[in-house]
Amino acid sequence: MSWKELLFGKPIPDDEAEEEKLGPLAGIPVLGLDALASAAYGPEAALTVLLVLGTAGSRYIGPLIAIIAGLLLIVQFSYRQTIAAYPDGGGSYSVARENLGTKPALLAAAALALDYVLNVAVAISAGVGALVSAVPALFPHMLLLCLLLLGLLTLVNLRGLRTAGMLFMVPTYLFVGCLGLTLLMGVVKLVASGGHPAAVVPPPRLPTGTATASLWLLMRAFASGCTAMTGVEAVSNGVPIFREPRARGAQRTLAGIVGILAMLLGGVALLSHAYGIGATPPGQAGYQSVLSQVVSAVAGRGVFYYVTIAAIVAVLCLSANTSFAGFPRLCRLLALEGHLPAAFSHSGRRLVYSTGIIILSLLAAVLLVAFGGVTDHLIPLFAVGAFLAFTLSQFGMVFHWRRSTDPRAKHYRVVNAVGAGATALTLGVVAVSKFTEGAWMTFVFIPLAFLLFSATRRHYERVERATGTDQPMQVVPAPEPVVVVPVKRLDLVTEKALQFALTISPEVHAVQVRAQVHECAELNGCWRKRVEAPLKAAGLPVPTLVVLRSTYRQVVDPLLGYIRKLAKAHPDRFIAVLVPELIEHRWYHYLLHSHTATVLKMMLLFRGGPQVVVINAPWYLRERRHPFRDAVLRARKQPALRGARIQQPVSDAP
Amino acid sequence: MSWKELLFGKPIPDDEAEEEKLGPLAGIPVLGLDALASAAYGPEAALTVLLVLGTAGSRYIGPLIAIIAGLLLIVQFSYRQTIAAYPDGGGSYSVARENLGTKPALLAAAALALDYVLNVAVAISAGVGALVSAVPALFPHMLLLCLLLLGLLTLVNLRGLRTAGMLFMVPTYLFVGCLGLTLLMGVVKLVASGGHPAAVVPPPRLPTGTATASLWLLMRAFASGCTAMTGVEAVSNGVPIFREPRARGAQRTLAGIVGILAMLLGGVALLSHAYGIGATPPGQAGYQSVLSQVVSAVAGRGVFYYVTIAAIVAVLCLSANTSFAGFPRLCRLLALEGHLPAAFSHSGRRLVYSTGIIILSLLAAVLLVAFGGVTDHLIPLFAVGAFLAFTLSQFGMVFHWRRSTDPRAKHYRVVNAVGAGATALTLGVVAVSKFTEGAWMTFVFIPLAFLLFSATRRHYERVERATGTDQPMQVVPAPEPVVVVPVKRLDLVTEKALQFALTISPEVHAVQVRAQVHECAELNGCWRKRVEAPLKAAGLPVPTLVVLRSTYRQVVDPLLGYIRKLAKAHPDRFIAVLVPELIEHRWYHYLLHSHTATVLKMMLLFRGGPQVVVINAPWYLRERRHPFRDAVLRARKQPALRGARIQQPVSDAP
Repeated sequence: MSWKELLFGKPIPDDEAEEEKLGPLAGIPVLGLDALASAAYGPEAALTVLLVLGTAGSRYIGPLIAIIAGLLLIVQFSYRQTIAAYPDGGGSYSVARENLGTKPALLAAAALALDYVLNVAVAISAGVGALVSAVPALFPHMLLLCLLLLGLLTLVNLRGLRTAGMLFMVPTYLFVGCLGLTLLMGVVKLVASGGHPAAVVPPPRLPTGTATASLWLLMRAFASGCTAMTGVEAVSNGVPIFREPRARGAQRTLAGIVGILAMLLGGVALLSHAYGIGATPPGQAGYQSVLSQVVSAVAGRGVFYYVTIAAIVAVLCLSANTSFAGFPRLCRLLALEGHLPAAFSHSGRRLVYSTGIIILSLLAAVLLVAFGGVTDHLIPLFAVGAFLAFTLSQFGMVFHWRRSTDPRAKHYRVVNAVGAGATALTLGVVAVSKFTEGAWMTFVFIPLAFLLFSATRRHYERVERATGTDQPMQVVPAPEPVVVVPVKRLDLVTEKALQFALTISPEVHAVQVRAQVHECAELNGCWRKRVEAPLKAAGLPVPTLVVLRSTYRQVVDPLLGYIRKLAKAHPDRFIAVLVPELIEHRWYHYLLHSHTATVLKMMLLFRGGPQVVVINAPWYLRERRHPFRDAVLRARKQPALRGARIQQPVSDAP
Repeated sequence: MSWKELLFGKPIPDDEAEEEKLGPLAGIPVLGLDALASAAYGPEAALTVLLVLGTAGSRYIGPLIAIIAGLLLIVQFSYRQTIAAYPDGGGSYSVARENLGTKPALLAAAALALDYVLNVAVAISAGVGALVSAVPALFPHMLLLCLLLLGLLTLVNLRGLRTAGMLFMVPTYLFVGCLGLTLLMGVVKLVASGGHPAAVVPPPRLPTGTATASLWLLMRAFASGCTAMTGVEAVSNGVPIFREPRARGAQRTLAGIVGILAMLLGGVALLSHAYGIGATPPGQAGYQSVLSQVVSAVAGRGVFYYVTIAAIVAVLCLSANTSFAGFPRLCRLLALEGHLPAAFSHSGRRLVYSTGIIILSLLAAVLLVAFGGVTDHLIPLFAVGAFLAFTLSQFGMVFHWRRSTDPRAKHYRVVNAVGAGATALTLGVVAVSKFTEGAWMTFVFIPLAFLLFSATRRHYERVERATGTDQPMQVVPAPEPVVVVPVKRLDLVTEKALQFALTISPEVHAVQVRAQVHECAELNGCWRKRVEAPLKAAGLPVPTLVVLRSTYRQVVDPLLGYIRKLAKAHPDRFIAVLVPELIEHRWYHYLLHSHTATVLKMMLLFRGGPQVVVINAPWYLRERRHPFRDAVLRARKQPALRGARIQQPVSDAP
């Protein structure tokens, strides 16, 4: 078993593709972690903004979360239809492309791509951040831990979908189970205590309010809370990863994710209000996350608390995985339309789109390194991308229903139109209220990505116009090429090159470049004896020896000049330049060689002009002289011609 | 004028080589700066060791410098003969190679190479150090200044010898003039005052002695003072840079250098004693160099003082240049014998050995960066290398005279034997007394370089055994190659490749690799119409279309498998794999392409086996379809065959 198999697993053949696909139960860990983890930071983000209101803040969290949950249901409804209508995945991008045109589609794609990249960096640094606050000794190695986790996620995803699904199932359902149990216990206690439960471990006292609730403050709180909705679009991008009927599987997964998320958000909001839990100022001593306060208030600080917190940390870390499932598929769709290089549409040895996975990983690594592993200020960028995608998707669906013959199309259209309006409004609120906090960056990166996608497509179109044809081949019976063999000295490497040259053309020019001040063996002398004589004796054409003088000691320039002259003299023929090359065993042996051959090949390819073709004749260091001489002799049943002077038949010929 | 010409000057043709050479006057700045700059630190190094003796120390400096000057004269005498005997340069290396064998020669070469590299780093950091103590604001940028100076020296040397000689003449002769004048004035004052001159600016009081003169202390002082002798061997390495008669020019230069150096050393020793000047503890407050003390004592602190100090700083900086003249020529000699890659023996556009210059610069840069621009502790390594070279050279000359017919050979032999003994003894003293201070490193680096030189030569010998031959060419009339053209789709790039393939062989296999899950155009359909039909109509051979299935989505592996099968089926033929390649205008466009072609070419070259030859057919994005169709038509005076269906003659045919 090679290291490659050990690391990435055995290659999976094409016909096992169906077996690699997922059902809804595995779909939730693969595509839903991003959305579910939002439950851990969405309410907290809103409560942090409300902190200035003091105890009065918890009054508003309920309504805010209710609005967000409502939006969530609208978005879910929209994506349900999207999944059914576009079972090849792509979500917002596909919807926009079909219904709104290429430009809105690329805008959606740019927004989604940005979100996916951000999600990886932010999720990993959030997870590692939580881990580091638990084990402070790890603090100096934070960036390293982030990169290690990123590497691990990349590896797991390169191994294929099934691996990722199975591996992430345990922490996901542990997270859902523990948190669900906490909320259930909390609600039971709430009801039993008649609305005023006593906390097992009381939450920190809230500071006294320093402001009153203004519309601006509530808008900002709402915009922050909206980060809870990011990640919902992932399922609609990843429809093809489900087993048939895939639309059904994807819809069930989406329903599961949104249901669990809404339940968690509602429960957290309800219990925060009941127990008087607020946010604690982040980045200061005494900071405690809202979820930690909720769990301690309901269940105390026993084993259950620690298991729940561990599950939350694990899900935060692994929520990066949603991007690994969504981004490569989005890139594949873009590549199929020529907006990205074709490599993004090729599935690798484990049937995943390896190029997308690797590029995602590299982009996230750049972000992590650039921000030193702390990516908090990137969070506001998220919501803008997500809501842009939501809006474009729902707006697209409005057009979709217009052309549909479904009897319920009219109703659906209204729902999508309302949804588009709501998410567009939210997008506006988020963009305005978070603009200075970093949302402005989305107005730089999304257009940049948009331009990149457009420019790539334009380039491919130009290449296609230049190279594409459906005409029959133009048959121009050109004569044999003129073969040019650059020769430094007469050795076995050169001899093999000449042998090959003579099999493809009778007109071979062996060219030696000699500088006045360089030591370089005189060839004229031995050429006659060692090349001309044996070839003449065999009745074969004889290569011409050309010696070029180099006044400035370069080898490549005089050679290029000669080749150009030949090309002009024979405008109806190819000029094939045959570069002999010694193949070494070890890479470091190449340090010992001049790279004239490499430079020459590059120069000829890039500047040689349309008539020039480059031939590379390798000579292996362990190669026998003329390796298939015996075979030739056997095939021809005639003795070899070993040069003019040696006339006796070769002993090993049959 | 291109940036290349602006930076490096116009290329110099071979026949102007003689005009680029130097006379003794320019030879001193180019090859002598290392030796002359030693006057600035040799006596100082000895006096620093004697510091513990207090005022008693100056008693010993005279005899020590006298011994060193004596050694210097012996060494000069020896190198005088070396220059005459080996006018191709190489100094100790050439002498040892001719007279003692390869191993001692490589030992000498390793010692010299190490010295040259050390000299660049140490000289530059000494010069920049002196500059920085004058302008302390520059202190934080010391490493940057070192690297800038290194870059400048590299550039000047790449521009050629004449540039370097002319550029360095002014500071060199300013240094010699100012220092000579100071010493002359000092001696006049000494005589006039009857042996007890009064200092214009009195030197700092020497501390009271804390030790008495032991043999060990004097040995260490002597070993330190011997650094004054480094650099003397440079002239013997660089003989070919002189105008004819070059041996004469080199000998005069050597005599000039040694004469000036001996005079400076003697003068400094004499005046130090007369004025009671000692070293001041380096790296401590109140540090003042010995030369600064001498100049202030003799001439005061006027304009003359500052001009002299400036000249000293300049010469310290530029003394790195000696290495740039010597190292590349040493490398060239090693390369000619196969101990280094051949590139070291090629002279560049300005007739200097560019590879050696660049490698020297890189090695020195590594040292400078590794030591942060402060390389004081590397100084002891110097003397070991220099004296190892001196000893091997003189020992070699002893053998040289044994075979000589010169009537004075016997006398010379005795002188060289005495010299070899003296320098060997000094080598022992230096190695022992400086061992812990860093001289041990030479016992690591010199053997390493020695092994590198030997291993390189062995590798070239192995290659030579494998490829070299003086036999006539084995004429094996092999049939045309089987040509394999990997095809993805039928476009103009592929069409051109097929056109070329048909000019070299009637047996062409167009191979398409198709994976089940990949989108890839079906070729079978259009092949018949667009390739077979027009070729058949023209009576030309028709390529076979082969479609390979790829179960694991790779392209390269199935192709390699097919090529290997072909090679086995045709053991008597070359398998030419023709890789069509689209040539873009801009490098970044290559990011948009899959690199299957590049990977395939590499795999075929390195693993294809002896029968495989790789052909690269470029297609330029602006290329017209079949660029030399018109030429072919003109040449054949017949209308083109534009495929079976289009039968009318082409309009632009004559």
